[in-house]
Amino acid sequence: MSLLFIAPNRDTEVWKKALLEKDSNLDIEIWPKVENKERVTFAVCWNHPKNVLGNYPNLQAVSSLGAGVNHLLTDVALPEKVRLSRVVTPSLKNQLAEYLLNSVLNYRNHIPRYVDQKREGYWAPHAAIPKNECTIGIMGLGEMGTASAQLLTLNGYNVVGWSKSKKEIAGITCYSKSERDDFLAQTNILICLLPLTEKTEGILDLELFKKLKKPAYIINAGRGEHLIEEDLIYGIDTNALEGACLDVFEEEPLPSNHLFWNRPKIMITPHIAAITDPVEGAEVILENYKRSLSGMALINEVIREEGY
Amino acid sequence: MSLLFIAPNRDTEVWKKALLEKDSNLDIEIWPKVENKERVTFAVCWNHPKNVLGNYPNLQAVSSLGAGVNHLLTDVALPEKVRLSRVVTPSLKNQLAEYLLNSVLNYRNHIPRYVDQKREGYWAPHAAIPKNECTIGIMGLGEMGTASAQLLTLNGYNVVGWSKSKKEIAGITCYSKSERDDFLAQTNILICLLPLTEKTEGILDLELFKKLKKPAYIINAGRGEHLIEEDLIYGIDTNALEGACLDVFEEEPLPSNHLFWNRPKIMITPHIAAITDPVEGAEVILENYKRSLSGMALINEVIREEGY
Repeated sequence: MSLLFIAPNRDTEVWKKALLEKDSNLDIEIWPKVENKERVTFAVCWNHPKNVLGNYPNLQAVSSLGAGVNHLLTDVALPEKVRLSRVVTPSLKNQLAEYLLNSVLNYRNHIPRYVDQKREGYWAPHAAIPKNECTIGIMGLGEMGTASAQLLTLNGYNVVGWSKSKKEIAGITCYSKSERDDFLAQTNILICLLPLTEKTEGILDLELFKKLKKPAYIINAGRGEHLIEEDLIYGIDTNALEGACLDVFEEEPLPSNHLFWNRPKIMITPHIAAITDPVEGAEVILENYKRSLSGMALINEVIREEGY
Repeated sequence: MSLLFIAPNRDTEVWKKALLEKDSNLDIEIWPKVENKERVTFAVCWNHPKNVLGNYPNLQAVSSLGAGVNHLLTDVALPEKVRLSRVVTPSLKNQLAEYLLNSVLNYRNHIPRYVDQKREGYWAPHAAIPKNECTIGIMGLGEMGTASAQLLTLNGYNVVGWSKSKKEIAGITCYSKSERDDFLAQTNILICLLPLTEKTEGILDLELFKKLKKPAYIINAGRGEHLIEEDLIYGIDTNALEGACLDVFEEEPLPSNHLFWNRPKIMITPHIAAITDPVEGAEVILENYKRSLSGMALINEVIREEGY
């Protein structure tokens, strides 16, 4: 049996090293140079090319290299019987939570504006946005959303949450699916951490923006397809929104001619909000590799019907 | 008796309104149009011009509009008998602590670099600086330093502190004056919150930078005169420092031809780390105005010999 990495443009050697340190007997292959396709029983994928996963007749399970699994669920080359899992490590949750806190502070303190002013040698203070105009609404209260809500609460923010099934989290007012408008009416800073499914695709649209409490701001660290890009531009131009911070995009890398680059009110980071640490991730992947061989349930197994 | 504001380029009307809401009988003058100089017993100053404070024969006390008092201590026109105080409100402490947390996160997540890349339409992720390479050392453990140390500790940072007299703060290793080198050897991110005195002027110099743990970074939210500007440039160019975040400068506004503006590794904010809220500040100023009339000790009274 062997374990295969298909992760173009990611440093797979670091992952291989981390896995071999835990079990030196592992047989690890790195796509595209695969010596024995029949021996591959487990694959770890990130931005894998289409039509590749059908080439491994004995594939039992596939893990995403991160928390997102949409790239696996939409791959028609992947047989139905193959089980899916994702990697959510403690540091991934902390990293995302800190990225979101950083983004909220950048918005409140006008940090991107000061960086822009610096280029011009221009000194001009702007009044910080007070905390009481910054109720934070988190869409998606899984492990990542819960950890983020907790860090923001710890830092004195009023946090509300919205999820498909109503959650109970200390210190956070949680709304269920049908209470979306109540949730939006409380929210100044909307954070999207939803999984990408048919129901959540395009959820960040103009209609939603208009329902937010003013001043309103968007942070998208879910998936690019959650956002209707034209609506964001329109929302900012018509002052429904103060601006946005985006870490994910429909097309990544974001094309160099994309409209977003030239918008001072849109902060852009290149999908860095949560990068799985290889040493921590290797532990989960190794465990799931072993479990898949013996037919056990996987850690963070994905339910295909739910979409996450 | 009247209370006089001397704060060019600050919105003194907001302060006047906040004070009158607390006591509508107050007689408030706004420099430079002062109707009756003899009636002025209390002045509130920020960046006040030299040679002005000598014109009020019945002046009892002067308050800084913020936490810094160096502008008062160095004013030879201010008679020795006039008592001095400063304004430190709860929101001032919170604001500064959040500014520092924001600056640490910006350094770790390469935020200014991403804003610069945005101008070029350039997508390039950079590995975040891990928390365990970010021991934070705070110079100056007064009210502001203590609140900042506490917020950073709450957010999971290892924090050490240094002050003239050794302090005891839960969760923070505190060093005294003579243990400076031990303190610096622990510190990756050095935060300067010292008062400006003869002994602290120019304290941030190349010799100090070299004693920091690598990777090293400087955040100055004290006073511009704490930093030897040429040494900062030299420290960055010779890789003793990764960079710096500066909120204060020898000359403010920072002249548009200053070397710092063109340095990508220097983040510049226009003295916004801690701006006193007029509603909160008015309470302290009103109380000290009353105390000065009856000869009582002032809140946050400044000891001239100590320099703060």
